Amino acid sequence: MNKQWILSKFPVGEIKEGDLVYQESEIPELNEGEILIKNIYLSLDPANRGWMSGQKSYVDAMNIGDIMRGGTIGVVEETNNNDFKKGDIVNAMGGWQQFCVSNGKGVRKIPLDTGFPLDSFMSIFGMTGMTAYFGLLDITKPQEGETLVVSAAAGAVGSIVSQIGKIKGCRVIGIAGSQEKCDWLVNDLGIDGSINYKTDNLRGKLKELCPKGIDIYFENVGGPITDAVLSRMNIGSRISLCGLISAYNAESIAPGPAWGNLLVKRINLKGFIVFDYIKRYLEAYQDLSNWVRDGKIKYKNDIVPGLENASHAIKKLFSGENNGKLIVQIADL
Amino acid sequence: MNKQWILSKFPVGEIKEGDLVYQESEIPELNEGEILIKNIYLSLDPANRGWMSGQKSYVDAMNIGDIMRGGTIGVVEETNNNDFKKGDIVNAMGGWQQFCVSNGKGVRKIPLDTGFPLDSFMSIFGMTGMTAYFGLLDITKPQEGETLVVSAAAGAVGSIVSQIGKIKGCRVIGIAGSQEKCDWLVNDLGIDGSINYKTDNLRGKLKELCPKGIDIYFENVGGPITDAVLSRMNIGSRISLCGLISAYNAESIAPGPAWGNLLVKRINLKGFIVFDYIKRYLEAYQDLSNWVRDGKIKYKNDIVPGLENASHAIKKLFSGENNGKLIVQIADL
Repeated sequence: MNKQWILSKFPVGEIKEGDLVYQESEIPELNEGEILIKNIYLSLDPANRGWMSGQKSYVDAMNIGDIMRGGTIGVVEETNNNDFKKGDIVNAMGGWQQFCVSNGKGVRKIPLDTGFPLDSFMSIFGMTGMTAYFGLLDITKPQEGETLVVSAAAGAVGSIVSQIGKIKGCRVIGIAGSQEKCDWLVNDLGIDGSINYKTDNLRGKLKELCPKGIDIYFENVGGPITDAVLSRMNIGSRISLCGLISAYNAESIAPGPAWGNLLVKRINLKGFIVFDYIKRYLEAYQDLSNWVRDGKIKYKNDIVPGLENASHAIKKLFSGENNGKLIVQIADL
Repeated sequence: MNKQWILSKFPVGEIKEGDLVYQESEIPELNEGEILIKNIYLSLDPANRGWMSGQKSYVDAMNIGDIMRGGTIGVVEETNNNDFKKGDIVNAMGGWQQFCVSNGKGVRKIPLDTGFPLDSFMSIFGMTGMTAYFGLLDITKPQEGETLVVSAAAGAVGSIVSQIGKIKGCRVIGIAGSQEKCDWLVNDLGIDGSINYKTDNLRGKLKELCPKGIDIYFENVGGPITDAVLSRMNIGSRISLCGLISAYNAESIAPGPAWGNLLVKRINLKGFIVFDYIKRYLEAYQDLSNWVRDGKIKYKNDIVPGLENASHAIKKLFSGENNGKLIVQIADL
């Protein structure tokens, strides 16, 4: 039998009890070309909330009754596909379930001889690390001595972005939602300054910590933080638009910041989705793995045991309670 | 004596009687290195409103008591500067006045043997044409077959952008504020379709006229038009952020559109200011002059006689009453 989380209602505002329903179904027989994957890890990400909206965006809309969509790492248990053999460890959109049947499309093998733990391929070497790497380096092309501001800086993506910024010689200022997170950014990750948006005077602190203005803004949040950052940005500065977590639970679409600063400061803003970079993941892996081995990048995973806890755990992303990349452990390897 | 418009109050909302005051002063003696320019034409542009705000933006803030700032064409009447001789026709930031004294910085000579009328150097070959040329070609790099939407399409800049779009093989849809303007765009300038935002169903018309979505948006206005356009834009599309005329008279800063579309559609938005391209103006002049000679670009100037009418005339930009590039004729050549 296969335990699964099913999208039962399109959430309005926060995800609530009953929007996702936990159920059991039979594991189907494999057709020609298909594989059966036992899911080990499930990635929980802010973007998941958007997928639940019933609106087509950069992925097809989910329908009521669908297995909740999610990125997974699993092991191939049965195979009718010559590209995969039993025991292969694979990355897939395996969904919130114990087992998934796939025709192999979009399923990528994870190398086993890297010396890194398997859960690192759900975070630093998974979508999280790829998002940070391409979103910062490809979109904004940071130069030594520039000032980089990162929102949700203690989050899974933001913390990697912040450290890559340091590697590239930037002055890095992180915005986060607790003193503990702010301290971790400066003391453990070695960035140049941090701002607690819940307690600090955001505009005053930005002025103090970014005396030469802001050259690059890595945007994860939207809302009033963005307004404050825009007002300190330099002429010819860049924005990497990665996420807008403050908006994902909104019941109606809130307006954005006025475009006046984008105009008079000739800002270049670019939205991106990490899937656009799939063909270049190896390039990112090579850099990121070297940086992790050299101790230049640290990462934290917040692993929640048990698939049954997934619908509760995902709420931590929006309350900011997670402590590192949020992952559900569905089974042991 | 020198008649001048002086900034007497920072306007709140629309420019009102008394914000600008018409007065006379003596023409000062020339110092070493200075020239005296008799102003012939004064350019009136939406951006002028921003200059009156008392806020530093891409130009220094104006102060109360300053001569109102403006781009001019004039003739050198006296010279203490070896770079200029009496009779030179020059482009300068000569201000809203009959005569201006300059040290020659930022003053550019206009060639006399072009076969084009002098007022064309206030429009198609002036800031207007340069803005259209670089704002479309450099910022968005239009490709044959792409769909370009232009707001304020019947305006001085928008009408040039629309025609350059056609020259580059785009499907061009213009948004304007009257049926007469909409008809002129399609019948006289030959663009593919136009939308009267005051009477048409904007979203419905965009859908009908842009069946393949929108690849490029040339933004002159801001406000609800922008929201509607964003919702039809394609993945990987581009926005050239040239102006936000709907906001210039606002008494408080209105929010902008939500950034969700910029993110999921991976839109590249770039603000620009034409002055950044000064070193490349000749390049634009060469293309634009060929296109005008070949009949591929038409332009209209709306010339208001008399400096005394400047403060009244500028309001036409915001009501949409101007009919072509708005220019004040201060004197005859």
